[in-house]
Amino acid sequence: MPRDHRQVKASDAERLYLEDIYVGQRFASASHLVDAQQIKRFARDYDPQAFHLSEEAAASSIFGSIAASGWHTMAISMRLLVESIPIADGVIGASAEVSWPKPTRPGMALQVFSEFIDIKPSRSKPDRAIVTMRCETRDQDSEVVQITIAKLVVFKRP
Amino acid sequence: MPRDHRQVKASDAERLYLEDIYVGQRFASASHLVDAQQIKRFARDYDPQAFHLSEEAAASSIFGSIAASGWHTMAISMRLLVESIPIADGVIGASAEVSWPKPTRPGMALQVFSEFIDIKPSRSKPDRAIVTMRCETRDQDSEVVQITIAKLVVFKRP
Repeated sequence: MPRDHRQVKASDAERLYLEDIYVGQRFASASHLVDAQQIKRFARDYDPQAFHLSEEAAASSIFGSIAASGWHTMAISMRLLVESIPIADGVIGASAEVSWPKPTRPGMALQVFSEFIDIKPSRSKPDRAIVTMRCETRDQDSEVVQITIAKLVVFKRP
Repeated sequence: MPRDHRQVKASDAERLYLEDIYVGQRFASASHLVDAQQIKRFARDYDPQAFHLSEEAAASSIFGSIAASGWHTMAISMRLLVESIPIADGVIGASAEVSWPKPTRPGMALQVFSEFIDIKPSRSKPDRAIVTMRCETRDQDSEVVQITIAKLVVFKRP
């Protein structure tokens, strides 16, 4: 069932509050096709280094050919995440650890697989918890380009 | 001395190789003024959640008023970083930890203060080391909006 997440809001039944969340709960995102134009555009705005901007410069760099900024991989992953995890009050991160086992290249189709791995009720604020989520961003061959462990603030049903 | 880093390449004398780097070495970036249009544009592309896109929706959210995506703060910080740290082969991150003590708001002028805090020569590859860098992104009142601890790959002089 294809669905345009930009236009359709999750119905109330689908919106997740803290009471709906459990350790081991998993989500898979849609997939996003990366191309050289997207890579260069992000790089021009936020990470203007030669190996993200030019095929020629990338060829003589550690990357060997053009590669996306790691923060571009993160930004694409965030888009896929917010479209795939319907937390009622939003995907609100307090902190995150990110690593990039291999670079994102033009032509890759990225998909994010997420799992809640820990839930810690807030001691000072009884309406919320810190939920730890582990996300893998994988390419079309299931190879991992990014691992993210993020701490989210998740609220109880009002 | 104002300088357009997008057009001027650091001269060879300014380019840093592993031999030029030491623990305690510090850098300060230029400053970048954030506005609501930039916040909404990044959000539309990469983090389309209501509190990043609409003043009205933000008012009834945990943020109280419009706030930048944390990944937008990271992307702006990366731009300021690559323009302020002239590592010869580029600012190449292997992994990073990021936290956001407070959100970035329209009207904030962000600046990044960086310090190399550890250097670990690679055991398998003698031409490089993993350099740990701690960065604070601060607003115009010197309040910290983001702390990043990143591991960079830095190469020796060829």
